[in-house]
Amino acid sequence: MAMSRISPLHDILAPSGIAIIGASSDPTKRGYKALAGLLEGGFGGDIYPINPKASEILGVPAYASLESLPRAPELALICTPASSVANLIRQCGEKGVKGAVILASGFGETGLEGKVLEQELLNAARESGVRLIGPNTSGLFNLHAKLNLLGLENVVPGNIGIVSQSGNMLLALALEAQHHGCIGFSSYVGPGNQTDLGFGDYLRYLGEDDDTYVAALYVEGFQDGRGFLEVAKEITRRKPVVVYKSGATRQGCAAASSHTGALAGSYAMTTDLLRQAGVSVVQYSDEILPVAEGLGALQQAPGKRVAILADGGGQATIAADRIVEAGLELASLSDTTRARLAEILFPQASLANPVDVAGSSDANPALLARCHEILIGDEGVDSVLLVGMFGGYASRFSATLAANEMAGAESMVETAWSTRKPLVVHSLYAPVRPPALERLREAGLVVYGSIELAIKVLAALAARGEYLARESSPTEPAIEASRSRLIEQALEEKRDLLEPEAKALLKDQGIAVPDETWVTSADQLGEVAAQAGETPMAMKVVSRDILHKSDAGGVRLDLRGAAALEDAYRQIMASCENYAPNAHIDGVLVSPMAAKGVEVIIGVVRDPAFGPVLMFGLGGIFVELLEDVAFRAIPLSRQDAQGMLDQLKASKVLDGLRGAAAVDKAALVELLLKVSQLVQTCPDIRELDLNPVIAYPQGYYQKGYAIVDARIILTTFDKETGDEFA
Amino acid sequence: MAMSRISPLHDILAPSGIAIIGASSDPTKRGYKALAGLLEGGFGGDIYPINPKASEILGVPAYASLESLPRAPELALICTPASSVANLIRQCGEKGVKGAVILASGFGETGLEGKVLEQELLNAARESGVRLIGPNTSGLFNLHAKLNLLGLENVVPGNIGIVSQSGNMLLALALEAQHHGCIGFSSYVGPGNQTDLGFGDYLRYLGEDDDTYVAALYVEGFQDGRGFLEVAKEITRRKPVVVYKSGATRQGCAAASSHTGALAGSYAMTTDLLRQAGVSVVQYSDEILPVAEGLGALQQAPGKRVAILADGGGQATIAADRIVEAGLELASLSDTTRARLAEILFPQASLANPVDVAGSSDANPALLARCHEILIGDEGVDSVLLVGMFGGYASRFSATLAANEMAGAESMVETAWSTRKPLVVHSLYAPVRPPALERLREAGLVVYGSIELAIKVLAALAARGEYLARESSPTEPAIEASRSRLIEQALEEKRDLLEPEAKALLKDQGIAVPDETWVTSADQLGEVAAQAGETPMAMKVVSRDILHKSDAGGVRLDLRGAAALEDAYRQIMASCENYAPNAHIDGVLVSPMAAKGVEVIIGVVRDPAFGPVLMFGLGGIFVELLEDVAFRAIPLSRQDAQGMLDQLKASKVLDGLRGAAAVDKAALVELLLKVSQLVQTCPDIRELDLNPVIAYPQGYYQKGYAIVDARIILTTFDKETGDEFA
Repeated sequence: MAMSRISPLHDILAPSGIAIIGASSDPTKRGYKALAGLLEGGFGGDIYPINPKASEILGVPAYASLESLPRAPELALICTPASSVANLIRQCGEKGVKGAVILASGFGETGLEGKVLEQELLNAARESGVRLIGPNTSGLFNLHAKLNLLGLENVVPGNIGIVSQSGNMLLALALEAQHHGCIGFSSYVGPGNQTDLGFGDYLRYLGEDDDTYVAALYVEGFQDGRGFLEVAKEITRRKPVVVYKSGATRQGCAAASSHTGALAGSYAMTTDLLRQAGVSVVQYSDEILPVAEGLGALQQAPGKRVAILADGGGQATIAADRIVEAGLELASLSDTTRARLAEILFPQASLANPVDVAGSSDANPALLARCHEILIGDEGVDSVLLVGMFGGYASRFSATLAANEMAGAESMVETAWSTRKPLVVHSLYAPVRPPALERLREAGLVVYGSIELAIKVLAALAARGEYLARESSPTEPAIEASRSRLIEQALEEKRDLLEPEAKALLKDQGIAVPDETWVTSADQLGEVAAQAGETPMAMKVVSRDILHKSDAGGVRLDLRGAAALEDAYRQIMASCENYAPNAHIDGVLVSPMAAKGVEVIIGVVRDPAFGPVLMFGLGGIFVELLEDVAFRAIPLSRQDAQGMLDQLKASKVLDGLRGAAAVDKAALVELLLKVSQLVQTCPDIRELDLNPVIAYPQGYYQKGYAIVDARIILTTFDKETGDEFA
Repeated sequence: MAMSRISPLHDILAPSGIAIIGASSDPTKRGYKALAGLLEGGFGGDIYPINPKASEILGVPAYASLESLPRAPELALICTPASSVANLIRQCGEKGVKGAVILASGFGETGLEGKVLEQELLNAARESGVRLIGPNTSGLFNLHAKLNLLGLENVVPGNIGIVSQSGNMLLALALEAQHHGCIGFSSYVGPGNQTDLGFGDYLRYLGEDDDTYVAALYVEGFQDGRGFLEVAKEITRRKPVVVYKSGATRQGCAAASSHTGALAGSYAMTTDLLRQAGVSVVQYSDEILPVAEGLGALQQAPGKRVAILADGGGQATIAADRIVEAGLELASLSDTTRARLAEILFPQASLANPVDVAGSSDANPALLARCHEILIGDEGVDSVLLVGMFGGYASRFSATLAANEMAGAESMVETAWSTRKPLVVHSLYAPVRPPALERLREAGLVVYGSIELAIKVLAALAARGEYLARESSPTEPAIEASRSRLIEQALEEKRDLLEPEAKALLKDQGIAVPDETWVTSADQLGEVAAQAGETPMAMKVVSRDILHKSDAGGVRLDLRGAAALEDAYRQIMASCENYAPNAHIDGVLVSPMAAKGVEVIIGVVRDPAFGPVLMFGLGGIFVELLEDVAFRAIPLSRQDAQGMLDQLKASKVLDGLRGAAAVDKAALVELLLKVSQLVQTCPDIRELDLNPVIAYPQGYYQKGYAIVDARIILTTFDKETGDEFA
């Protein structure tokens, strides 16, 4: 699991010395609490309280200024107000301090004045070479280095690393861990406003830190989303990364914005991109710690076929429902497995999955360990979920069962460590922490009191296993950017691509476009009609100035013969002149009418945080009403493109509904990949929309799809301000 | 809350004497544990162990048989095997025992032989007048009567009544309550196979029981679903009823079936019908106890506008997301409220909703109680959710805050009890049970450690408030059943209604049907064509023997003029004769083609458990792909019908997508009500399908809808077996 250490945070988070700027002897101040916390935590390095008015604080000699310190500490904790910070950072730089934690709020999250202050702070950091944690951060800790700047009590060292944009969320997780008893943390950082260092930097540190087995992140918004994805893609190959992203609703985004100034961005897009990078996204805050614990301990499952082992019908039934709802499968048990179970269980036991021992274990709970062993031996089983009373037999039935139950736990541990197939244990007695369950936990297994959470963990293990199996191919080769003649000309003319130009660009990329004619004079229509024959045609205006062609009366459908085409041409010209008298008309595009098929849409945007992102969905009500779309960061791998099709809730439409033939999904995958490549090749493309694309069964119409409309917006100039877009 | 007591269970669950048939001195047997449990629990009535081989058990004199008892106990606990039970029930009847708890399994859940045994048992019960709890039950308790047949330790008396088809689920809830510390139970019953008494009977008992404030049910399947709905409708007006229904998936249904022999039925249908009867349905087993606790304590909210009061931005953001996702609303705070909050909070506090006090309460947690009071005073606020650290200030910041925090708790209690607007408290410190939170709980408020669960409770409170406000109208008047001439004739001919007959029946009910002509000879087509003029017509075969008209070539569309109609008639006759040579052809139905609109479907089935149920949904992909349909038990109230429209995930389609006009929803509501009335009037209708119905904007086409196809299946005879359907 060792990685080369390129993060600057290793030194900063395990410093040999720390300065506390604004150290105080007032016990209600952070400048006191941090000092007290360091002393209580047994921090072994040098502590330098800085306070011009004190000679010592809590028995530690104080200094008047950074300058007067006998040497440069690696880390400074700055407890002073926002206005003082930029200057202090410059002093840090002069002294040789490597990193500073800035607690003060009152920066970008409060409005324009704060934004100016935050920019000044960043300038100071860049110029002085000091890396910033915060501002507006709750602080950090590294428990293995006995560095705890939060003054949090009762947090024990362990292997979960936390990055949280909410200090109270860290507190919640710490209390949950304390209550659990067997969970501990490695490091915590509050990224605050991410003015300098952000989520990607902290994740890299946790990825390289040997004391961290799993990273868990509470995120309100990313500043450098693209950078985070790149780090995540690298780290998730080695360790699980769990993210809870807030701002799933408009109202949640607004709340996040007033908290950390984060622009939360589209939740659906962000979570899709995180999953693309191998991140385990959890939906509810209750899942953060359980899923992190489970992934940290068990890492992954080889597949999604779960065997449920139960000692009661109710829990077995609930587990079966939740497993199917989570997209997992109930493993189908082999005849051998059933026969082996039948040998040791009562006749009334249920040998299908869920296996319900139906009282067989009441006087012999260790029997469950033997069942576990039998189930693990079944080739059709990828993981085992034990649900019910295990751990509580001694208290429920007879204290004499305690030794038997402990033997069962030992045996489960032994079996679990002999296989790659994870065992997740649910027990009604989990909150009671009986000895047999504590034994499982000490041995690195996981025990949950909630069936529902246990199954979230199983789902995360299976998804991670699937991701790791899938993403073993090397990353896509970089594509050299180039600027085609068409784009050059459009940029010169300070306009976007016209539809025929956009389609020509697509065609150059190897994408099939309809056999269309760009007509700039009515004289050409006779020839077009002759070529078309009986094929019904569509005619659309081409104009750099008309965005909404239908509204302008610029579209005519189902035209047959020269007369109809000429008539339509006249009507379109008249309508458009009426609609936009000063518009430059670049002619019309005449295309064969697309046959009926499944309408899909493909779009590309450049997101401020994540860069170029491709969107795919079914058209019409699916996108408008159901918002059933998938997102991937460009460049897409083949698996990414395939995943976009599979992910749609309405993906069955692509497979053919009501006996309709399935569309050519391979052709759509190719199309998505080629669009991704086009956007890589042409950094000038700011937005791209293929809407609609009609998808057909294999072998039908060119390459299996028809691109009815294409729109490409370039990095160009705002018509009103003359400014170039970013 | 007092109700007249008509349940037979009051005597049985608070007996003055109890017989334990199969009492044992073997500590591993239920016949021992139950006796020990009664003694330990301090049961005050007479206990009669029955065992022909013992003179006393645990110091209690034993009897050889029921017959030899000095008097009739109200209750018998039967611990003997399945084969012995029917005979024992007869003995119970002779002695005068009122009710018997039958633990044995091995009845209907095991197969045919068990089913026979179960029928014998039921016969014995009916003949002897003894009411049965079980068989295949885990038993029961009534803690207020110190009657505990489960031998469960550490369960404390309280106000939640439980009915659970899983003994382990009861155990799970008991452990959860024990861990919580402030939750107790009134009575528990395990209905097992519900051979005699079922969920409806137990719910009636809990509804009438003064010690029960809320009922919580774990249900695998109902036997008498219709009866349960009737009881629920009555009880939910007085007390909350919480149901977790298992079998949300096919695999879950299969697991439930092997557990209690329950036919789980459609999950979507069952939960819709439960909600129609005012039941609070929870989706996850983790929600059962928290939601029951919250509803028991707070009963209802006057609306769904929630104010979030937070002392940290992370939890505020999470709460905002979950509230919106739950269908609740973030209350919009008045200027007065904001001004009042501004007076007492720091300038950096966020005064929008969520209100984030941003440190204002760090040295004065009681300030949160003042904020609570201000928020409750806002007319736009229906409930308050406090999220964050309350209860933990003393341990997080300074022990000196303990008194201040307790004063805050007292103040919250006072405010909460002065208003109908509920306060739900989330605290990171809930599992630690600090004094301020314990005070809230003792005073009858609720405190959760999970934001997500707290919001489930708020949603349940709001839904219950809405239900109670809505369902204040009297229940629908009974409609007298009648048998129309059309139905009489069809039944005589042992066939279902022909399509024109079905439409005539609908028309009699006041439902608009298209202006169609039933043509039985080609001679009539000229006149039909003359009347139709230029209107395009559709022609469909009418035949008692052809169910799939399109497959038989029995449908022709878009016909204009006499020649086209005559041609279509000949083609239809030829196709149908070819498709089904022996079919009786009853002519064709000629109808005007329906204009385009929104396709909806209406169906009625008679469910084995729930009786007549109406289904409504949007047609096409909505029903096929998304299963987006709503169910209500017949008879429907106007609110039920309206609720079916509102409930659809795609309900926006009815309101008009992409600028389309909204359909006439009032007309659809009328249609649903009239279909409901028709099914009440005609008990011979076994199934009814209006598919498709085209819905139009108000004022368009007759009453705003066109019933394109109608099918009515009667209670009639199976063509193969000659048996009458149930």
